[in-house]
Amino acid sequence: MNRKDLLGIEDLSREEIEEILSVAESMEEILERPIKIAPTLRGITVANLFFEPSTRTLNSFALAEKRLSADYINLSASSSSILKGETLLDTAKNIQAMEVDIIVIRHSIPGAPHFLAERLDASVINAGDGAHEHPTQALLDLNTIRKKMSTFDNLKVAIIGDIEHSRVARSLILGLNKMGAKAHICGPPTLIPKWMDTFDVTINYNLEEVLPDKDIIYILRLQMERQHESFIPSIREYIKYYSLTYERLKKYASPEVLIMHAGPINRGIEIESRVADSEYSLILDQVISGVAVRMSILYLLSRQKTNEDSN
Amino acid sequence: MNRKDLLGIEDLSREEIEEILSVAESMEEILERPIKIAPTLRGITVANLFFEPSTRTLNSFALAEKRLSADYINLSASSSSILKGETLLDTAKNIQAMEVDIIVIRHSIPGAPHFLAERLDASVINAGDGAHEHPTQALLDLNTIRKKMSTFDNLKVAIIGDIEHSRVARSLILGLNKMGAKAHICGPPTLIPKWMDTFDVTINYNLEEVLPDKDIIYILRLQMERQHESFIPSIREYIKYYSLTYERLKKYASPEVLIMHAGPINRGIEIESRVADSEYSLILDQVISGVAVRMSILYLLSRQKTNEDSN
Amino acid sequence: MNRKDLLGIEDLSREEIEEILSVAESMEEILERPIKIAPTLRGITVANLFFEPSTRTLNSFALAEKRLSADYINLSASSSSILKGETLLDTAKNIQAMEVDIIVIRHSIPGAPHFLAERLDASVINAGDGAHEHPTQALLDLNTIRKKMSTFDNLKVAIIGDIEHSRVARSLILGLNKMGAKAHICGPPTLIPKWMDTFDVTINYNLEEVLPDKDIIYILRLQMERQHESFIPSIREYIKYYSLTYERLKKYASPEVLIMHAGPINRGIEIESRVADSEYSLILDQVISGVAVRMSILYLLSRQKTNEDSN
Repeated sequence: MNRKDLLGIEDLSREEIEEILSVAESMEEILERPIKIAPTLRGITVANLFFEPSTRTLNSFALAEKRLSADYINLSASSSSILKGETLLDTAKNIQAMEVDIIVIRHSIPGAPHFLAERLDASVINAGDGAHEHPTQALLDLNTIRKKMSTFDNLKVAIIGDIEHSRVARSLILGLNKMGAKAHICGPPTLIPKWMDTFDVTINYNLEEVLPDKDIIYILRLQMERQHESFIPSIREYIKYYSLTYERLKKYASPEVLIMHAGPINRGIEIESRVADSEYSLILDQVISGVAVRMSILYLLSRQKTNEDSN
Repeated sequence: MNRKDLLGIEDLSREEIEEILSVAESMEEILERPIKIAPTLRGITVANLFFEPSTRTLNSFALAEKRLSADYINLSASSSSILKGETLLDTAKNIQAMEVDIIVIRHSIPGAPHFLAERLDASVINAGDGAHEHPTQALLDLNTIRKKMSTFDNLKVAIIGDIEHSRVARSLILGLNKMGAKAHICGPPTLIPKWMDTFDVTINYNLEEVLPDKDIIYILRLQMERQHESFIPSIREYIKYYSLTYERLKKYASPEVLIMHAGPINRGIEIESRVADSEYSLILDQVISGVAVRMSILYLLSRQKTNEDSN
Repeated sequence: MNRKDLLGIEDLSREEIEEILSVAESMEEILERPIKIAPTLRGITVANLFFEPSTRTLNSFALAEKRLSADYINLSASSSSILKGETLLDTAKNIQAMEVDIIVIRHSIPGAPHFLAERLDASVINAGDGAHEHPTQALLDLNTIRKKMSTFDNLKVAIIGDIEHSRVARSLILGLNKMGAKAHICGPPTLIPKWMDTFDVTINYNLEEVLPDKDIIYILRLQMERQHESFIPSIREYIKYYSLTYERLKKYASPEVLIMHAGPINRGIEIESRVADSEYSLILDQVISGVAVRMSILYLLSRQKTNEDSN
């Protein structure tokens, strides 16, 4: 991989994705050691600049940075200068001027990471931009799949739920397509966006028709905070038609199916507890992959940086 | 000590408490070095998961972790996934999946740390669970006493104030009893809970009768935020009857008495400034003990973990 | 420099300022290395105790501490014990009792750092106390100037804007005077305080008269949050008379002039974007100087501490 920034799955080639996953495999070896630290990023400074709240993505990045011996600082949306009306670019340029090499950014505006990447020498990693992309999530999902499946080719992945507002879904669909797998999306018509027909996916509004013969069922979080926006008639209605219950799983899905979810889970809403905790579930595998994949990306971008410096 | 978790004083034997205090003594030697860092916990990752606000306990843990070269992350109650309705267990399992070895948890629900400890491979340290226990506070209190007294046997400790809502009092009484010391509790009848008669303590509502012949007077913080709950008629009334003033101290207490308080202090409420700052006060000694005792506990639990791994 | 604390520019001699800037020059060399870390402060613990929000000052200190291998903890105003009514001195003594060597404090009350410095063994660094002083900002400003100018003697610096509420202005004027430079202040009469006549400055309310023949124009942030206090009739009015537009710059200022601003910038208010981003602007140079100057101060104070210890 030969890039300054990691902005979206859209930009990545299949070869680049394969390289990221292959390096992630080595990173997993570091994580299995008794002393889980490598000096790989010693001297590299990372700023985690999160304008939207985050627990798992922020901590996953922080741990990835620690494991590779990078220095890092966390800056949150409630920071003073942001509240004082400083522009995003001024904030980022200030951070960069403090000898920061990599900026990990989460922002509610689609394209914010791309805007910064064009204007900064520092590497930019998109940790989620609005409903646009969440590439490190998709890469950790692909990594989780890689560890369970011999190949991505012709793999059938159902993605269930609120596709419209999900940067997770968007990045994952792009990633699956690039790797030769096929995404089958399913959810209430009001939550399947029109632009979906530009992707190579199948669309079906009936969960019970989608479940059979899939290798993986990827459940999206129902964003309860959007309830007031009336995309769905009621949560009760949503559960009735789209919740992955154990009964549905056993009745319709393949006995070898694997279940994924990006978290945080609404137990009893989009997924029944018995499913989330079943032997089919890869949910905690995804978390483990998250640290390894982020280590991989941090390494590949900083390697690129170091090469530039020595040229 | 041969345990995965440190959940409460209730579970600990006298021998275990003695081991914790003995290791704390070695830890104090590290803290007296010019370079106050030991590599003891290198490779160990700790998550400080505080669902209730905290300054001194959180920073004391953070410094203990730093001093022993552990890696740590702080997660607060305002974290995104908690706000998004994730269950406590899911949050903790996610943290554990990021290769976290020890979870330090403060939570408003009594028993929350025990609930997690049963369900996680990671060690769990209770940093305060509701009005139930605050074992590391009791252990640092015992450590502070150990450094001043030749023995715990027949030591007389008065504990003054809001016993009802105090996890500090509960853990301390349990610890004193286990070590052979005797707790004498005192406060307004409305703040002395009924369950106190299951402990080996004396109860007296009159401060001036309790002060004489005690070795240690332990003052509890008056939780002003509970004022509206009308446990006491007024703060003025409380001060009149229960504030440890310098005058009372000189008039009723032994000239060798020592004063303790878990902080933060309400100066002029439960304790007069002149007492808090007097030569009788061990209040800052308690803070120093806090870091050493937490280093001791972190070491003893992680040693246990390492042993398990190699078996 | 032979001091325990860095409280204000007022206390510093010209020789001390020169020493800080000279050490900052060596620190800049560390920052230019591929591995930007020196072991200088290994074993030193710093607490960043910010009672007012801050992004750039806090992060600049944090990075300075990291670069020199100090351990540090951040404590914010929203900390529990502060909310619980603990006094400033108790909070600070507690921090000190955790073996903290240096306390960096920002507080809204003028003199708060001085109050603590007299009562603590730990070194105290003033990171901004109300409208009083912000000495590390002034020192980084002087460092930025030093790198561009052969000498401070007879340097002419215009300081434009809200002088009244600006600790930045106050510390800078003191610093410039000590170094032999001359401050020329300019702003609306309501924002130029009466006490200014005790300083060796010129005062002029007309920007266009002040701009010519200055070496440096230092623009102060218009604190929009003070708008309701009616110090100025309106922002529109302020812009009309005091905004540094590109047109004004080209028409009135020297072609060699340099522009400074402590940030965060209100683009289009006190400074036009085209000026902030122009080749005249030293705004990002100030940020770089910030880390180096803070490293210098941390080193000089801790060196002093180490000397004391070994005596």
